[in-house]
Amino acid sequence: MAFQYLTNVPLQQAKEEYLQLLIKNGLQPEEETVPVQEACGRITSQAVYAHICAPHYHASAMDGIALKASKTFGAGETTPVHLAKEDYITVDTGDPLPEGCDAVIMIEDVIEEENGGVCLYAPAAPWQHIRQIGEDICAGEMILASHVKISPSAIGALIAGGVLEIPVIRRPRVAIIPTGDEIIPPTADPAPGDILEFNSSIFSAMLREWGADPVTFPIVPDDFDKIRQAVSDAAAQCDIVLLNAGSSAGREDYSKDVIAKLGGVLYHGIAIKPGKPAILGYIQNKPVLGVPGYPVSGIIVIEELLKPVIEYCCGLKFQRPQYVQAVLSRNVVSSLKYQEFLRVQTGRVNGRLVASPLNRGSGVVSSFMKADGMLEIPQGCEGCEAGEEVSIRLLRPLEDLEHTVIAIGSHDPLLDELANLLHLNYPELYMSSSHVGSMGGIMAVRRGETHLAGIHLLDEQDGTYNTSYIKKHFPNGGVRQVECVGRTQGLMLTRGNPLHIASIKDLAGENIRYVNRQKGSGTRILIDYLCRKENLDTSRIYGYDREEFTHTSVAAQIASGSADAGMGIYSAARLYDLDFLPICTEQYDLLIPDSAWELPAVQDLIRTMQTEEFRTRLEELGGYSLDQPGRVRQHF
Amino acid sequence: MAFQYLTNVPLQQAKEEYLQLLIKNGLQPEEETVPVQEACGRITSQAVYAHICAPHYHASAMDGIALKASKTFGAGETTPVHLAKEDYITVDTGDPLPEGCDAVIMIEDVIEEENGGVCLYAPAAPWQHIRQIGEDICAGEMILASHVKISPSAIGALIAGGVLEIPVIRRPRVAIIPTGDEIIPPTADPAPGDILEFNSSIFSAMLREWGADPVTFPIVPDDFDKIRQAVSDAAAQCDIVLLNAGSSAGREDYSKDVIAKLGGVLYHGIAIKPGKPAILGYIQNKPVLGVPGYPVSGIIVIEELLKPVIEYCCGLKFQRPQYVQAVLSRNVVSSLKYQEFLRVQTGRVNGRLVASPLNRGSGVVSSFMKADGMLEIPQGCEGCEAGEEVSIRLLRPLEDLEHTVIAIGSHDPLLDELANLLHLNYPELYMSSSHVGSMGGIMAVRRGETHLAGIHLLDEQDGTYNTSYIKKHFPNGGVRQVECVGRTQGLMLTRGNPLHIASIKDLAGENIRYVNRQKGSGTRILIDYLCRKENLDTSRIYGYDREEFTHTSVAAQIASGSADAGMGIYSAARLYDLDFLPICTEQYDLLIPDSAWELPAVQDLIRTMQTEEFRTRLEELGGYSLDQPGRVRQHF
Repeated sequence: MAFQYLTNVPLQQAKEEYLQLLIKNGLQPEEETVPVQEACGRITSQAVYAHICAPHYHASAMDGIALKASKTFGAGETTPVHLAKEDYITVDTGDPLPEGCDAVIMIEDVIEEENGGVCLYAPAAPWQHIRQIGEDICAGEMILASHVKISPSAIGALIAGGVLEIPVIRRPRVAIIPTGDEIIPPTADPAPGDILEFNSSIFSAMLREWGADPVTFPIVPDDFDKIRQAVSDAAAQCDIVLLNAGSSAGREDYSKDVIAKLGGVLYHGIAIKPGKPAILGYIQNKPVLGVPGYPVSGIIVIEELLKPVIEYCCGLKFQRPQYVQAVLSRNVVSSLKYQEFLRVQTGRVNGRLVASPLNRGSGVVSSFMKADGMLEIPQGCEGCEAGEEVSIRLLRPLEDLEHTVIAIGSHDPLLDELANLLHLNYPELYMSSSHVGSMGGIMAVRRGETHLAGIHLLDEQDGTYNTSYIKKHFPNGGVRQVECVGRTQGLMLTRGNPLHIASIKDLAGENIRYVNRQKGSGTRILIDYLCRKENLDTSRIYGYDREEFTHTSVAAQIASGSADAGMGIYSAARLYDLDFLPICTEQYDLLIPDSAWELPAVQDLIRTMQTEEFRTRLEELGGYSLDQPGRVRQHF
Repeated sequence: MAFQYLTNVPLQQAKEEYLQLLIKNGLQPEEETVPVQEACGRITSQAVYAHICAPHYHASAMDGIALKASKTFGAGETTPVHLAKEDYITVDTGDPLPEGCDAVIMIEDVIEEENGGVCLYAPAAPWQHIRQIGEDICAGEMILASHVKISPSAIGALIAGGVLEIPVIRRPRVAIIPTGDEIIPPTADPAPGDILEFNSSIFSAMLREWGADPVTFPIVPDDFDKIRQAVSDAAAQCDIVLLNAGSSAGREDYSKDVIAKLGGVLYHGIAIKPGKPAILGYIQNKPVLGVPGYPVSGIIVIEELLKPVIEYCCGLKFQRPQYVQAVLSRNVVSSLKYQEFLRVQTGRVNGRLVASPLNRGSGVVSSFMKADGMLEIPQGCEGCEAGEEVSIRLLRPLEDLEHTVIAIGSHDPLLDELANLLHLNYPELYMSSSHVGSMGGIMAVRRGETHLAGIHLLDEQDGTYNTSYIKKHFPNGGVRQVECVGRTQGLMLTRGNPLHIASIKDLAGENIRYVNRQKGSGTRILIDYLCRKENLDTSRIYGYDREEFTHTSVAAQIASGSADAGMGIYSAARLYDLDFLPICTEQYDLLIPDSAWELPAVQDLIRTMQTEEFRTRLEELGGYSLDQPGRVRQHF
């Protein structure tokens, strides 16, 4: 049942040897001919030469008269030349030069005479005011070299040069074969145990961006012969085959054995994390890759091991990824055995780029979507320390990151709504938020990692919110406490409240399963306080140690039936149509350091909080009270 | 017949007022719904929320046994807990958590007993080794905000969140109407006076890159009613209309009058060069632009005036263009009246980025294709001086420019072949060349503008090539004279030599029309010398002042019948199937400054010159002799 990895080969070595082997087996860019109008963005497969000159005829460059220049020789202020009407021909700009003519005189310099002739006070130089044949492009000249990308203006030059069809590199056709007994096509209504097959959609989109042509095959069950048949068919029809194994144990063995049977396997197991169980195989000159089933692992394998092959087949050296230096916000531990790829969120805080690691789970596709960059920790390195300057491979344009407001702190769906309105009202601005709880937010502000933190921290002594915490953690000031919303906290309960929970005390009841928020979150601090006030020993509450990171995920657990109650805000309960027992209204503020307050982007965010749209949207969500959002309560 | 411009309004003002007016008239982004698999690269029209949780069921995160955690409480090294086979269920990774269970124990920690039960030496915490519902995405959470670009991983997150169709901004449909009596569809065999219609192909490709959907209409002749009908039809079918007037006089008046009649015109005439005769019009909420006919003018107008409109309709703030500082290589004069857009070639020479202006002709589409960047000279500025540091808007990635070998000097088609082979052998490298003649090349090396210059300069005193010129212009050395090829120079003559030209002397014959190369070119120096040697007064040669910049364009003039003879290399004569009277074999060398010689890219170029492929290709072109290309003849 255990995985059998043959190798733990370093990434760079695997990449190079694999491509060399494929080229030795006969892999090469393929060619096709396309109409030039459809060639934008394609790559030339060979040098392209002009068939005709542009312009393809001698054209008048002015409105005026065309004539033989020699007839005007000797003309001057005092020695005008008179020409009969047979000696010249009237022309407009773009007209072909009439036979026997070799110059054009501008109409402004021509004096018309009564007999239909003209009088000239200056001689014409041969070939003046004429766009000569080939001024732009000469027949036989190279318009485009081999293996270059065709731009819009190149299309113009090609047509001007009489090239109407162009040999380009054929997009490599890539078969994607999803396998697995539990895998089902995308649906909005899956049964428990069904695993939605979305890897092929992610891989297809990546491949299209790189200039390949993906073809997704039907899902194949976990059966050696069926997988063998599918791979064999795919290799016959396509240039490259991806076998997307499921994640359950033993699956990769089928993949490896099938590929080995039909062709060969160079390596099974690469020293990267995530992505280790990759298989680098081939059937003759066709690459056949075994790609791990977890989406994040799959994406890394496709990026690191398939992309160089696609690049070669496209005849193109892709742009090198852009790297920036950033300060790491937290310690990161890495395995010595693997090169590790860690997704980070990045933004400019207090003048420096800060990189904050995201969830590492390889099943968590949303973390890839939220990632701004990738920290690559080399094999043999134990990790990186908080505050260390690290090199980050950018996944989004640096310019976007420079215009991103970072929120790290307490979770509330209103942050997403605020991000949405901010970007709608100020299209160049973005906002990214991570949910680490109110105390996590305060620490992030102290460490200079964030522009703002949502906080709602109850002072048990006097019943106030946030102020005393800020005073304690920022004894030298330098931050603003900014009003955001009041929100209703309470107990989210199974729809219909079948267990008749009516108070905090009831949470200790037999058969009642609680689901909690993580330590350090304002909501956890609140429930701890409420229990203490009721003299309730929290060890008596079943599930008190079960921690979720957002209001929404607490609500999702209750809605799924795996818990009966959890503390949270009204809007989350409403989202899942749960019963709700209101406990208190708390003050959700934004904590903003002075350095961030000055930023135009943060000021635009404050303005967005003051809009009617924001107020309306929060009313729709429910459970919020708005007084003067954006008002500075206190400047410390 | 003269153009009637109503205005000379500054670009920025025109841009802003136009967009404001269109929005006031009701222009807005439109929406459509697409399957999520086809949504990559599209822009969300509204915020998108998850329909289901991901995972959508509680899944085992390990291979092992599932059970109720409370049954294991109290287990320890000395107090093992024994469970009957009814108390647990074996699960694999990904399996749904069985009813009544809330924990998974790894198979490694399970001791199987003979009765089918198991023994545990440690308690299970509730929810350990379980991927809980919503771990990745919770139902109701915002997956994507409004007006953001959909990435491959976002497609995965959407499908995981049960979103199978997604509202995106509909690509604005843009009608392109080519007009003009002489305009014909692309063909490789146009008649004199025909103007190939390729603007619509350039504009379509640009529009597609920006996310719009171009529709090219049939060519409309210069007829007010027909143009009116076409614009009216286009406005009914599309969101935006481009009326691509021809370049001949009076044409724009139709465009302006048609647009004014069907809707309104905000401005006719913008203070930009090229691009002045643009028309900013509208029919209700639909933008209708009059775009000048010269391709370069049209491209500038589309870029500067249409792109912001497309951007608005796409709901997207495009990436700001990248600017770099570069040293200008030559003086540039600009009109005070206009903001001028000047195309430049750019590369890093001797540690600094150098920008060399390209041909300004607005009919010259090849110069746009060759441009690396754009120098924008503000309205009210007289120009820029050589050596001045200027800001260049990049048209190619900076990384490509950093890897471009620059050749400025004498023209030879072998340079294009060399560029082609260099890029094929070293995909990250490019080579760009400008043709300014041998003396121009020497000056470019002196000014530090180029990595190398092709030169073939005859010393009339001793019959040697290049050496004495290098000594004179580089008295302090610092350059290498590198062997390239020997090439046959001679007289290119009309096919069949009907005028029986048999010597240089014959060029002065009656009825013989010569076409020359520009002053400073090695070939001009050669013909000047040959005439002097024959005591031939060049003023007696008709057309001696008619100057072309390349061998190929001289050949093109002779082939077109507008000249009878011209000095040039054998390969150019052969390309046009002309007669050829060999005069001498000259030495075509490369002049390379020391700072460039050290560069890996230049060394790769030298290696490319030494390849068998280069030799073979030059044999195909004909008229070249190769001894040891790439050998340093002399280091000064």
